Amino acid sequence: MAIESWELKAQKGKDILTKSIPKQWLCPDEQLPPVSQKSILDFPRQSGLLSQRELDITDMSATALVAAMGKGELSAEETVVAFLKRAVLGHQLLNFATEFLADEAVARAKELDEYYRRTGKLVGPLHGVPISVKEHVSMKGRTCNTGYVAWVDNIATEDALLLKYLSKAGAIFHVRTNQPQSLMHLCCSNNITGTTLNPHNRTLTPGGSSGGEGASMGFRCAPLGIGSDIGGSIRCPAAFCGAYGFRPTTLRNPSSGLKVAASGQETIRGVVGPLSSSSIEDLALFQKAVLDQEPWEIETSLVPVPWKSVTPTRDMVVGIMWDDGCVRPHPPITRALRHAKEKLVSAGIKVVDWEPYKHQHGWEVISALYYPDAASKQHELLALSGEPARPLTKWAFTYSGTTPQTQTETWALQAKRDKYQEEYHALMKSRGVDFILSPTYPGVAAVMGESQYWNYTAIWNIVDLPSAVFPSGLTVDPVADALTEADRGYVPRGEVDEREWRKYPGPEVYEGAPVGLQISGRRWRDEETLAAATLVEGIIRDGK
Amino acid sequence: MAIESWELKAQKGKDILTKSIPKQWLCPDEQLPPVSQKSILDFPRQSGLLSQRELDITDMSATALVAAMGKGELSAEETVVAFLKRAVLGHQLLNFATEFLADEAVARAKELDEYYRRTGKLVGPLHGVPISVKEHVSMKGRTCNTGYVAWVDNIATEDALLLKYLSKAGAIFHVRTNQPQSLMHLCCSNNITGTTLNPHNRTLTPGGSSGGEGASMGFRCAPLGIGSDIGGSIRCPAAFCGAYGFRPTTLRNPSSGLKVAASGQETIRGVVGPLSSSSIEDLALFQKAVLDQEPWEIETSLVPVPWKSVTPTRDMVVGIMWDDGCVRPHPPITRALRHAKEKLVSAGIKVVDWEPYKHQHGWEVISALYYPDAASKQHELLALSGEPARPLTKWAFTYSGTTPQTQTETWALQAKRDKYQEEYHALMKSRGVDFILSPTYPGVAAVMGESQYWNYTAIWNIVDLPSAVFPSGLTVDPVADALTEADRGYVPRGEVDEREWRKYPGPEVYEGAPVGLQISGRRWRDEETLAAATLVEGIIRDGK
Repeated sequence: MAIESWELKAQKGKDILTKSIPKQWLCPDEQLPPVSQKSILDFPRQSGLLSQRELDITDMSATALVAAMGKGELSAEETVVAFLKRAVLGHQLLNFATEFLADEAVARAKELDEYYRRTGKLVGPLHGVPISVKEHVSMKGRTCNTGYVAWVDNIATEDALLLKYLSKAGAIFHVRTNQPQSLMHLCCSNNITGTTLNPHNRTLTPGGSSGGEGASMGFRCAPLGIGSDIGGSIRCPAAFCGAYGFRPTTLRNPSSGLKVAASGQETIRGVVGPLSSSSIEDLALFQKAVLDQEPWEIETSLVPVPWKSVTPTRDMVVGIMWDDGCVRPHPPITRALRHAKEKLVSAGIKVVDWEPYKHQHGWEVISALYYPDAASKQHELLALSGEPARPLTKWAFTYSGTTPQTQTETWALQAKRDKYQEEYHALMKSRGVDFILSPTYPGVAAVMGESQYWNYTAIWNIVDLPSAVFPSGLTVDPVADALTEADRGYVPRGEVDEREWRKYPGPEVYEGAPVGLQISGRRWRDEETLAAATLVEGIIRDGK
Repeated sequence: MAIESWELKAQKGKDILTKSIPKQWLCPDEQLPPVSQKSILDFPRQSGLLSQRELDITDMSATALVAAMGKGELSAEETVVAFLKRAVLGHQLLNFATEFLADEAVARAKELDEYYRRTGKLVGPLHGVPISVKEHVSMKGRTCNTGYVAWVDNIATEDALLLKYLSKAGAIFHVRTNQPQSLMHLCCSNNITGTTLNPHNRTLTPGGSSGGEGASMGFRCAPLGIGSDIGGSIRCPAAFCGAYGFRPTTLRNPSSGLKVAASGQETIRGVVGPLSSSSIEDLALFQKAVLDQEPWEIETSLVPVPWKSVTPTRDMVVGIMWDDGCVRPHPPITRALRHAKEKLVSAGIKVVDWEPYKHQHGWEVISALYYPDAASKQHELLALSGEPARPLTKWAFTYSGTTPQTQTETWALQAKRDKYQEEYHALMKSRGVDFILSPTYPGVAAVMGESQYWNYTAIWNIVDLPSAVFPSGLTVDPVADALTEADRGYVPRGEVDEREWRKYPGPEVYEGAPVGLQISGRRWRDEETLAAATLVEGIIRDGK
């Protein structure tokens, strides 16, 4: 078969990755676990390639790392080296990176250490914290391809604004991470660097579109990561990989310099936000470090709402959404929600059932607003290189139909979007519910290529609720999650419900997969949502 | 000539107005000043139709009225009756109303008085304040035609959200006011209730699109009014009529229930805001009364930024924009700016020249974004009734071309819009300028039908700066504003500059017209802008 010209171009993108890998930390092929080994979570320890100190460092949260550096117990250099080593292993096992930035990261760490030695102070609240970065977040002088072969030669002229703030706060960027073609899969596969795997079970997807970040967090290649989310792209990888993720309310975090196919489109606004391998606290640390720098002074479309400190309060009402009325969650998800309810009730938190409000309607509106132009820009980009559309790309492109909407059709949808958002908000108030605890996805991490149902996350994009994902502490259980007779007798409410229900023949397929949950607060209440998530997670995992 | 069916329908709209006029307060035709009399500002006093107390009441600001009612020196009923009487005269002289609400207003005033008698308290910060309301702001059970004959039968099912808040704060709505066909003239003329005149000189326009409000404020038919602004529609009428007006930053005031042709369009966001016959202080009173009720809790697309109290400070830098680089202001405007500069400098305020930044580019972007659909919705509405497009409607419809943009063309323009806004903001910061003092329009109130150049106001819509308009205290002067030899030798920079310059053959045409000025602050700094405007106006008018 002849090599197509797009393949030659894609190879350039792959070459950038290959060349960037710090070879000194590669695990010899013969020492790698067999491809058939599903979970590789223990490999860093088992392999002996990381020292105990490196293992300890990579087990720490960003908050803990900064505290240790502030006491002089840890250097930025040893921190970044430890995470780089782990990231190299992670990449060999999961194919999650698009480019390593080892030399620059170590050089920056040395600068930070020098600053600390000289002044006895940290440069900022993220001093020495390694952060992995989704590829479509521009880095000056580096390629930014956003998962398109056509953009393999595109060189960013400037750092994304978010990176400038994070860097000023002391963060170090050591690795860039993979994303799916079009950025519109809850999966992570493109024609340049290929497919990323889930560290808990390599037959499953890490989720997407920030799938490289999901893998990075799940394998602890960095304490913090940067993802973006227009329908679940931060939250789904966090949940699939047993990590933490936060989708802030729109117009709070700066998104200048995130390369997308259709810039200037605002029918549905994507957001950029953090993922964490360790804690909700780290997500708040990230948010505070950015918003304390007042990004609205540069990116003027942002709202001038400073980040405020919020103490978690037990005086709250949590509504549990067991099912969105469209697609039934798989048994592990329902079990995790039951577990959560029990723990919350025991802890004295007021818990009610949350009746979903027109989620099918919400999906119809948001899906139509993803591609009002029938994805013309995206089709152009594919045509430009000649690369084939991947199956989940084709799937996403069907969302808004095949003919462009007229401007006035789009405006009518926007009016529906705003009305739905207002109705949902009014409902939370009239029901007295402060936070909604819900599935992140119908199931745990999907089988590769099977992640088709977005609306457990996309619904909060259209309603624009700040939403955090955290691990419930449970993983798929071969006994507890077996299909019951009642399950086997379930009569789906329609085609989509049936399609999704069939994806759960039983727990075996999802061996080892963690169960993440999602908590959403009212619009703009990002700080309160993270505070509540901290409390709720603590109660669910530790009962306190 | 046969009567067209649209004329019959338009007549229904006019009949609503005619029937609503409280006949007991009409001035007999024979006592009205001759049609040829230009200024009718003194008619309320000269006519003897208002008592001295009524004249005194209608001379008061909203702030003063509320204070007097709080002391029991004034009832809401006598207040609203005084303003109603003045409004009826005003309507006979200026044709500014679309509907009077006399019975309801008096009934509401009695309720307020009863409340005060019973409790000794005011119901809220706008207790008993009569407010005139631009017609396209929906009132439950009443028609809402937005200046289109096609909508003469459209009955609103709910009050606009803004009216609910104002009413709760104690305001009384006593008259609805005229607007141009399409809402897109800086003039005030439609096929239903006709053309509104300027109280300072009835051969001139009161401006638009909130032209009925301009006349209402200029003739003191209400202490406060409600307008809307997507290119100057609050500020231009305020300036043309010697009144005050405020265009807040977008997404602060609630606009639910403002009827427009293309709802859901957000390429350029219009805003709703106050006009005042008396003071900047009243504009802030209005804003505070609304925002203290947290409208973002209902209209969730608004930003959750509470109104804050700001004390004016003299420690500020005011940049004066003498000319926008495209169209030269007429002599009265330049004289008012010179006067302003002199007073400000004398008062010790730091004043610099503001060099405009790419205003032609700004206009090209905003004008293309007004009608990305080539005004299809507006054309549909005209076709629906068969009413003819008025000349300034046709003029506005040319702004965005005659073929609809593709979605991606619109998105590219939106990206340009945001970039321009960011660049302008960065420039204000790097130049250290806090506020920009500028013309509101190339001239004073335009000759009827001649108001074509929008960009002294529209520029702040695209940059999204909060902007207040206030009277400079100067009016057109037959001597001081005569064309000089230098003026006569002015070589325009192009067609548009020439067209606008030719509209000033000399001061005679504009006899009696007031000169308004505009002051704009940085985005979101609405409170600071009104505080600065209070200070600047005081200095310019009284030297202190």
